[in-house]
Amino acid sequence: MSVLQEISSNVKNMKTLEYSLLARWTKQIKEDLRQGVKKPFREVIDVSWGDPHRGGVKPLTFVRQVLAACLYPQLMNGEKLPVDVRQRAQKLLDGCAGWSRLVFSKCSFSLGSYSATGGLPEIVQRVSEFISRRDGGVPSNPENIFLCCGSQWALTRILNVLVNAEAPFPTGVLTPAPCYSTTPLSIEGLGGVVIPYYLSEERGWELQVEELHRALESCKGACHPIALYVINPGNPAGQVQSRKSMQEVIRFASEKRLFLLADEVYQGCVYGETEFVSYKRVLSEMGPPLSDTVELASFHSASKGFMGECGLRGGYVELVNLDPAVKKYIYTLFCADSSPPVLGQIALDLMTNPPQPGDPSYLLYYQETQHIRSTVVKNVKKACEVINSLQGFSCQAVEGGAFAFPRIHLPAKAIQKAKEAGMQPDTFYCLRLLEEAGVLASPGSDYGQEEGTFHIRFCILLPHDVLGELLQRLSDFHTQFMKDFS
Amino acid sequence: MSVLQEISSNVKNMKTLEYSLLARWTKQIKEDLRQGVKKPFREVIDVSWGDPHRGGVKPLTFVRQVLAACLYPQLMNGEKLPVDVRQRAQKLLDGCAGWSRLVFSKCSFSLGSYSATGGLPEIVQRVSEFISRRDGGVPSNPENIFLCCGSQWALTRILNVLVNAEAPFPTGVLTPAPCYSTTPLSIEGLGGVVIPYYLSEERGWELQVEELHRALESCKGACHPIALYVINPGNPAGQVQSRKSMQEVIRFASEKRLFLLADEVYQGCVYGETEFVSYKRVLSEMGPPLSDTVELASFHSASKGFMGECGLRGGYVELVNLDPAVKKYIYTLFCADSSPPVLGQIALDLMTNPPQPGDPSYLLYYQETQHIRSTVVKNVKKACEVINSLQGFSCQAVEGGAFAFPRIHLPAKAIQKAKEAGMQPDTFYCLRLLEEAGVLASPGSDYGQEEGTFHIRFCILLPHDVLGELLQRLSDFHTQFMKDFS
Repeated sequence: MSVLQEISSNVKNMKTLEYSLLARWTKQIKEDLRQGVKKPFREVIDVSWGDPHRGGVKPLTFVRQVLAACLYPQLMNGEKLPVDVRQRAQKLLDGCAGWSRLVFSKCSFSLGSYSATGGLPEIVQRVSEFISRRDGGVPSNPENIFLCCGSQWALTRILNVLVNAEAPFPTGVLTPAPCYSTTPLSIEGLGGVVIPYYLSEERGWELQVEELHRALESCKGACHPIALYVINPGNPAGQVQSRKSMQEVIRFASEKRLFLLADEVYQGCVYGETEFVSYKRVLSEMGPPLSDTVELASFHSASKGFMGECGLRGGYVELVNLDPAVKKYIYTLFCADSSPPVLGQIALDLMTNPPQPGDPSYLLYYQETQHIRSTVVKNVKKACEVINSLQGFSCQAVEGGAFAFPRIHLPAKAIQKAKEAGMQPDTFYCLRLLEEAGVLASPGSDYGQEEGTFHIRFCILLPHDVLGELLQRLSDFHTQFMKDFS
Repeated sequence: MSVLQEISSNVKNMKTLEYSLLARWTKQIKEDLRQGVKKPFREVIDVSWGDPHRGGVKPLTFVRQVLAACLYPQLMNGEKLPVDVRQRAQKLLDGCAGWSRLVFSKCSFSLGSYSATGGLPEIVQRVSEFISRRDGGVPSNPENIFLCCGSQWALTRILNVLVNAEAPFPTGVLTPAPCYSTTPLSIEGLGGVVIPYYLSEERGWELQVEELHRALESCKGACHPIALYVINPGNPAGQVQSRKSMQEVIRFASEKRLFLLADEVYQGCVYGETEFVSYKRVLSEMGPPLSDTVELASFHSASKGFMGECGLRGGYVELVNLDPAVKKYIYTLFCADSSPPVLGQIALDLMTNPPQPGDPSYLLYYQETQHIRSTVVKNVKKACEVINSLQGFSCQAVEGGAFAFPRIHLPAKAIQKAKEAGMQPDTFYCLRLLEEAGVLASPGSDYGQEEGTFHIRFCILLPHDVLGELLQRLSDFHTQFMKDFS
């Protein structure tokens, strides 16, 4: 009594990532290692996720102390934890649901309670103040902010409202190539069409507005384009967009009546000369009529800064210039999944409102975050140097984000071999890298890339010695690989 | 440049709950109280959620100690926390992603890392062992279990696979009335059709198989029924299904080729004579061919037992007899939302594997859970007694779950008044109850009920004194209301 024939064809259209083959393989290799099977390495270095803690980056002490105290308030008795930790934990607890002392003799606020659909009002308020500070005073209205179970969660719900599966023409979403793999999957799963626009690798993965025009032109008659998705700082490409480029994108969105989806989760991770500026700020600076009309959703997350609390699942979306009627539907959809994880919301509060100079936790917090930042800056420099020194390998400058996305100039023989194995050439490369050197990176073909080009993606938010080991393994492997297939 | 005309009509079809009006009103009343406005009460008693901590039930010490230690492992140094807490925390941390000591001198596992899409393998394994113990040895395969961000999350994803928005006929899902309000919303949001089957109130909200036949017959020609959704123990109705009734449901599902969706999140909350038995166990006991063919998804949650950790967002689904090809699509959809919150997963681990006799934490854990259990048993008895003693109010026995769902026999005058105000009569009742007595309950019209009948739902997972205050306010209000409208 299988229902396979009957299931949603949209869901059937969702492609399986090349990465899933590599993940299965990794599981087997780890099992082999556990059982003592001899390999050229003793442990797999998994740099396939944008997950700092997985790579060995340490959690921030302040963050973990506050979270622990909220969970187990007995920790607030005594002086074990710094006073600002205890005060912050108490303040956060007071914002949770529960009884005050008004009716009963007891007081019981617990983060085990559901929060409101859009998050705890006090945290939403503080996130809104953070946004306004970040944007040089551009106002932010808490009613336009929704905390959620990770930014991807919110993006999928908004796509759900925008993508109209029953319309005569399918809905199209302009999406960068390369692009973080989950968003195209979500668009397809909802019955929408991905319209790729290619970032210019030779110009440091720049977003060029002519390419947006080309992409839009290319889908005429095939779908109804409704939104433009941008990722800044880039994932996987690691570029940071200039203000000028963002202005062009905003004008394009306005002219073509496209809803702007700005994935800005790596805004805290910028290493190059270009500063991060939010789409909301640039839009506001452009003034009316643009600043009053272009519909924008901007996403941020507690997983993606130097805090790196991926496991807690905390993100938010801010909606700008939305028709209240559309916002109502977004809210209804958010309601259908209950409330977001409270610990993820607290992580967002701490990320957007860290200890300030003079606070007892400030010094340690500053040292820990500076250590991560300087490590990553060193990592980025080292990774690009090493890769660009290797024959058949090249890497654009990594200006922001969590990844390097170097291009591999694969020999024809390797491409041929991959074809024979029924694999994408860069998946073939990654599989060999995994088997021979114990490095799990992910293949460019999962992200979209210009026909005939090949890439790999790996996380650079790592302790410096781990990156060193990774680059050593990668260099040795690559040199041998190029020799074998030349 | 609004896109309102263009948004998905499925999303537009999602109805707004009556409750949202009450929630807005509550916000205003709380604000008034904060500002010192005089009301007949000093605090709103919010019993509209199935959220024990919100009602004042205390978190379990063992659970919070383990969670705090996982978050802030420094707490494991020294003897402050019981040894089984420290051991469990260490074991859980070792299952998270990070580096072992093999390659580098340091060891770093953090629950700040993403877990696998279906959850941390060690926890999935232990959940699977719990299921098998619960079901008297019926085997459970970890590969069929997916941990997730709350059971509702998993249910929506599975509906997403089952509901085919593009099919010539819309997909139908048989759904109980009354029914927890989120599931019908999700079905409609995906473009499916809710086919209500009515539980028999006069027979203690029994699910009668003849009613399933009637409901299925009634939708002929209008939709293509594909699944049958059951909630046991019931929400909001509080019934517990007998084995015999479940066998009938399974035979019906098999005969009509329906996918069985069993919402069993209240399995730990049973107070009457009928024991909880899982659908999986009953299906297995029925033997082949049924036990090999009926497709079943069973849901459970860390929010809904006496642990009540709603804010952590941890649930799981177990899939039985699924076509591997269908399972693949479910997995793909799960992947699109990244990994579930790690703290919610840990809560599931602790719920399914509590301290055992002899463990240092056992006694306190036992006392705390027994206290909650005996309180709720007392609450249920008291609530039914009080309500059934009031004129125009009647309540079936609450055998399980978190709610009482009494019927209000509203006077014609009250119904007329509600109509004039453009409101459902039970919403009108709830609004008066809120304004005059400071009690936030939710109206039966949000859950589905037989035409011409009216109900309210309120949570009974409360400290006994809170329930006492609630019943006092409700009685006084109800008596006055009936007088005013008689």
